[in-house]
Amino acid sequence: MERKRLTYAMIGGAKGSFIGPVHRMAVRLDDLADLKAGCFSRDCAANAAAASEIGIGSDRVYPDWRALLAAEKGRVDFVSICTPNDSHYAIAMAAMEAGFDVVCEKPLAMTLAEAEELEATAKELGRILAIPFTYSGFPMVKLARELVAAGELGDVCKIVLEYQQGSFRKIDFTKPLDKRNSWKMSPEKSGPSCVVADIGVHGFHLIEYVTGHRVESILADLSSFAPGNALDDDASILMRLAPRSEGGLAPKASMVVSKVATGEENGVRLRVYGDKASLFWNQEAPNYLCVKYPFAPERIYKRNAPYVKEISALAASACRIPAGHHEGFIEGFANIYSEFCAAVRDRKAHDFPGPLDGVRTMRFVEAALKSNSNANAWTEI
Amino acid sequence: MERKRLTYAMIGGAKGSFIGPVHRMAVRLDDLADLKAGCFSRDCAANAAAASEIGIGSDRVYPDWRALLAAEKGRVDFVSICTPNDSHYAIAMAAMEAGFDVVCEKPLAMTLAEAEELEATAKELGRILAIPFTYSGFPMVKLARELVAAGELGDVCKIVLEYQQGSFRKIDFTKPLDKRNSWKMSPEKSGPSCVVADIGVHGFHLIEYVTGHRVESILADLSSFAPGNALDDDASILMRLAPRSEGGLAPKASMVVSKVATGEENGVRLRVYGDKASLFWNQEAPNYLCVKYPFAPERIYKRNAPYVKEISALAASACRIPAGHHEGFIEGFANIYSEFCAAVRDRKAHDFPGPLDGVRTMRFVEAALKSNSNANAWTEI
Amino acid sequence: MERKRLTYAMIGGAKGSFIGPVHRMAVRLDDLADLKAGCFSRDCAANAAAASEIGIGSDRVYPDWRALLAAEKGRVDFVSICTPNDSHYAIAMAAMEAGFDVVCEKPLAMTLAEAEELEATAKELGRILAIPFTYSGFPMVKLARELVAAGELGDVCKIVLEYQQGSFRKIDFTKPLDKRNSWKMSPEKSGPSCVVADIGVHGFHLIEYVTGHRVESILADLSSFAPGNALDDDASILMRLAPRSEGGLAPKASMVVSKVATGEENGVRLRVYGDKASLFWNQEAPNYLCVKYPFAPERIYKRNAPYVKEISALAASACRIPAGHHEGFIEGFANIYSEFCAAVRDRKAHDFPGPLDGVRTMRFVEAALKSNSNANAWTEI
Amino acid sequence: MERKRLTYAMIGGAKGSFIGPVHRMAVRLDDLADLKAGCFSRDCAANAAAASEIGIGSDRVYPDWRALLAAEKGRVDFVSICTPNDSHYAIAMAAMEAGFDVVCEKPLAMTLAEAEELEATAKELGRILAIPFTYSGFPMVKLARELVAAGELGDVCKIVLEYQQGSFRKIDFTKPLDKRNSWKMSPEKSGPSCVVADIGVHGFHLIEYVTGHRVESILADLSSFAPGNALDDDASILMRLAPRSEGGLAPKASMVVSKVATGEENGVRLRVYGDKASLFWNQEAPNYLCVKYPFAPERIYKRNAPYVKEISALAASACRIPAGHHEGFIEGFANIYSEFCAAVRDRKAHDFPGPLDGVRTMRFVEAALKSNSNANAWTEI
Repeated sequence: MERKRLTYAMIGGAKGSFIGPVHRMAVRLDDLADLKAGCFSRDCAANAAAASEIGIGSDRVYPDWRALLAAEKGRVDFVSICTPNDSHYAIAMAAMEAGFDVVCEKPLAMTLAEAEELEATAKELGRILAIPFTYSGFPMVKLARELVAAGELGDVCKIVLEYQQGSFRKIDFTKPLDKRNSWKMSPEKSGPSCVVADIGVHGFHLIEYVTGHRVESILADLSSFAPGNALDDDASILMRLAPRSEGGLAPKASMVVSKVATGEENGVRLRVYGDKASLFWNQEAPNYLCVKYPFAPERIYKRNAPYVKEISALAASACRIPAGHHEGFIEGFANIYSEFCAAVRDRKAHDFPGPLDGVRTMRFVEAALKSNSNANAWTEI
Repeated sequence: MERKRLTYAMIGGAKGSFIGPVHRMAVRLDDLADLKAGCFSRDCAANAAAASEIGIGSDRVYPDWRALLAAEKGRVDFVSICTPNDSHYAIAMAAMEAGFDVVCEKPLAMTLAEAEELEATAKELGRILAIPFTYSGFPMVKLARELVAAGELGDVCKIVLEYQQGSFRKIDFTKPLDKRNSWKMSPEKSGPSCVVADIGVHGFHLIEYVTGHRVESILADLSSFAPGNALDDDASILMRLAPRSEGGLAPKASMVVSKVATGEENGVRLRVYGDKASLFWNQEAPNYLCVKYPFAPERIYKRNAPYVKEISALAASACRIPAGHHEGFIEGFANIYSEFCAAVRDRKAHDFPGPLDGVRTMRFVEAALKSNSNANAWTEI
Repeated sequence: MERKRLTYAMIGGAKGSFIGPVHRMAVRLDDLADLKAGCFSRDCAANAAAASEIGIGSDRVYPDWRALLAAEKGRVDFVSICTPNDSHYAIAMAAMEAGFDVVCEKPLAMTLAEAEELEATAKELGRILAIPFTYSGFPMVKLARELVAAGELGDVCKIVLEYQQGSFRKIDFTKPLDKRNSWKMSPEKSGPSCVVADIGVHGFHLIEYVTGHRVESILADLSSFAPGNALDDDASILMRLAPRSEGGLAPKASMVVSKVATGEENGVRLRVYGDKASLFWNQEAPNYLCVKYPFAPERIYKRNAPYVKEISALAASACRIPAGHHEGFIEGFANIYSEFCAAVRDRKAHDFPGPLDGVRTMRFVEAALKSNSNANAWTEI
Repeated sequence: MERKRLTYAMIGGAKGSFIGPVHRMAVRLDDLADLKAGCFSRDCAANAAAASEIGIGSDRVYPDWRALLAAEKGRVDFVSICTPNDSHYAIAMAAMEAGFDVVCEKPLAMTLAEAEELEATAKELGRILAIPFTYSGFPMVKLARELVAAGELGDVCKIVLEYQQGSFRKIDFTKPLDKRNSWKMSPEKSGPSCVVADIGVHGFHLIEYVTGHRVESILADLSSFAPGNALDDDASILMRLAPRSEGGLAPKASMVVSKVATGEENGVRLRVYGDKASLFWNQEAPNYLCVKYPFAPERIYKRNAPYVKEISALAASACRIPAGHHEGFIEGFANIYSEFCAAVRDRKAHDFPGPLDGVRTMRFVEAALKSNSNANAWTEI
């Protein structure tokens, strides 16, 4: 008997969106679901153009997301939300209430309270809700997580996380901003934070995902270096994490995150130091994972090499092609979707970021803002 | 008016194939065509299993490729051939004669004569025939080609090409070989050459594609280092290339290609030295291109950075996502398909390897074998 | 007329010392001075052994440093102090008072007050006092400084500095510590700080040297992760720097420094982000300097390449051999000495770290301790 | 009892020489010997200037090397020869006959016959003769040699060696050449080969030193790409090596060596492939050695890390400072001298390249020229 194909609708993601096309490529790569309906833009022409390019008949293109949810109820399995931050909450809430499972871009909401509501609703209604913290979909990140869990590093004591982008240095501020950048600098569209909410949350999730430690409190120093930017575009954040078990070691972390790091493209670099070994992962060479020892040569693990599956079935199953033939960002993103789609089918837990991660990252954003406005004092998460 | 979608059929590529799934992912990534029919294996169960996994109804799954071609004539736009080398010629020839455009895996044929026939047929019948020399689909390789063409390197004098794989070192020769490796070592299935025909052709094509120079003669020293291997699994090859124009400089090249390079995964490394500058591309860090100068700092070009499109529209249009978010092997493969599909639609020239490249690489294979059996003498291509 | 050769005496630096031999090799490399006298250890046998190995006659080997200073007064030009921290102040002070110029290991003293006294004395008596913040002796660090000064980066807004060592992870804490490590963990020998005073000061100096900005206040979070360590062995420190001129941009910095960063050897990594470009230097690949731009390929500057001297005479003159033939730590150290020896000869300013750097780094150490014990509050330097 | 200090004289190495100062720095670094006499140039003023800079009294500066050998007989322990190739033979021969031990720059002579005479003379007279094939002095090269000898790679089957320089691309050929480059292109001064004799010999020695296999025959294709160059400046060379023992595996090698590799500085890159593992060393990151396995993560060995001494006492004893604090070219050179000086003292075998290496490299040069002029036929060494 043939398995029923999954179907989905997309809200947001018209021409000019970076992430909308990534969602669609990710879903197609592994043939996970068919995109059957959409409301890609509130701009009528942009909406129609996207639909035409994607190949969606005009009967399933909607002028607003409410219309989409009403008409597609029961017709598609899930909805992917790729709109600016200010509409995440309303759409995700309505979609779950209408019976859809949901993939919602980060940050999950404008406020922690909204995120908590979404999490509660997902739980109450039994909806699957994924937030694509993409880097946790990369095989070598999964391998890192399992090496830490297996004790290869010993007790983790320190984490250093950089997420350095120079995107705001590519803007000509003497001209009107393009759409992709302007909403990120707008408190109305983006919420009270820019860099922490937009990419700091990736770093935060990566730390918790890889180490298995929970961040307890943070100290944040936010800056606005881009001309005329009302929101944070650079941050240095210190963290204290809880032990993994009673009496265990409580690690510390140092994070640097920026959109004004001139010349950087997407510099996500994670270092985790344990008392036995340390690891290093760099998103710009994502198929490698370095592990360093005091008394043995450094080891470079390679995506999908024969030894990977012996350490981590999770990492190995996230690979499509042999070592040496690189997989990148779209493949990592597709791994989030493949785990999500598995959950949509079997309603069980799979390895993708869910509502709790959405809530925790919003706690992080709010704590960062609070610490920053409180003389950079330590603030609980 | 909506554009008619392309459709295709696949021959070969069942479970256990490396390249079959890559073709399918590449086509899906950019939503280029729908796979509608297949003969994935001569093994009935394997064929059915692949069809079911892909989602092809049993009415369009065929027990042999002849049946497929007969039944799908006029129903799909093109056929992708992912079988072992020994059937490339017969299938590609029959497919073109039946009216299909064709993507055929390399090497194009078992012999040069066959390749020449295929090329002549494609020309005569006006069929589009692509051979996926994948690396020419990578954006930074396209950029390299255009930098050379624009004279950034000056006159090219030397090329160094390594294609180092250790795949035959991962085989336990005390046990029966698995299918993927056994046919590559079999003269019946693979033809008279293993490493030169299987991956040397990639290197050869990369040299001609990037430099625009034609190889005129080669000197080859082939070895068989893997236990019990009747075919070449390691080769050192010297080359002499023609000037690009009358009176121009005639470059030389040195190539090393191996399947017994223990510990290497897919080490394709190209260096091109001109009299003004040199370039270096490494498939294992494919999103970068290094250019070195005598009197200026080395430059690292990054895929899809703002300056790429100013140098090469071709390279820029082969990118999907921003610099820093890596694209890899599947994306490079998809670029071959997107250019091929464009040609299928408009019957014009596009940037993908075609029948002439298939012929030239077969000339290269035959010259390598001839030189090797003739005391490594220089042999014309 | 032949130039009179410089001569010097060494205090500390017997067998087991890391830095003593480095001083001696650095001086010899460029034939800067002759080592004529020493008090290498308070241990009589160790002292004699060192003298014999170095080739110093017993008449100029002294049982204690006071005897050395008394007897060598007027006989050698300068004294190099390679003892543990607790004797730096007394020896340096007595040496300057006895008329010697001085090279004194970092940290300059146990307290800020002592450092200030040394600085005042050097000034009052006209002594040359160098503190080997080694990394400022590396050619590519000098080049970095000049690129920043020349405006290549635009306005500096953010600095990220890591100095990661795993040395304390190579210790077997179940056994008595060896001398080299034990004094570093001892408040009596090392002073109130371990990692900040021992290597954090290098990072601090590097930031001020390269950017030309002065650190104004810091926020420090210190940890002691090594078993039984009473002092700090890991620190995360945020910094605020002064503008370089009235109304200029005030940069921020984030520093991570550790002796428990398992598997790291000597991971000094500096990133400086300006609004036009950024630079990156890594002490473990010290012959390169990367500069990244928003709209141009990354540039890799190479030590002693032809273009270096056009940008920085200082960097070029700090090189001995052609690009591609690497210089390392000893050569960088020798550059400190060659600038110091030039000053000893001509009594003019040269490019080496002096008493003010010694004072500023001690301010940094004291501020770090104060911030840490004051709930990590911002503390002025 | 104090050990008598060694003394030496230098012939060649005045201002403008690259290698003369390197010899002097190398000797001083480890305080191995005192330079007491010299004939640094046939140009009187240059000779005097060098002597003055080095600090040699006029009574021991000589207008020609014969005068030096006559006058210094019995006064210095050894002579270092840093002249152009055409005088190596005469000086080395006369020096040995006069009773000196000798360090002579490569290539040892203009012809194989001369080299053989020198080797015979050294043997007959019991003189120590070192030829600084520098790279064998690097600790990680020594480690590589011992890893191969210990069987870590299994049976070696293939070696790939690049020695890529772009030095001839930094020359303005419209002007008279400077001294350093002009003699290298002159058949009278340089001998019948330029690039093979000048740097190819380094590559050849490195292959034999690291693998322990002897090259038996070669096939060489030489080119002259630099304008007006009468000698070879680029070469591609294939090699066949002898098994290490009766019935063992006979490896092959591919070498590329160039002085017209635009933008390269000193690109010595060695790859050795065995049936169990492979290794990679790059002179431009000389403190690391990579070893790759089919079934285990790649390992990065680091100079002077704790595990190095457990594998190779030779490699460990060639280190001065801890891992992470880089040593470079001068230190590698100094390791040649320290082994040579040990032999000068104890007249025993030590780990430095000697007369047999000088002879073998000259065999290699002559075979390369012969093969090249004989249609690139295989030629015995």
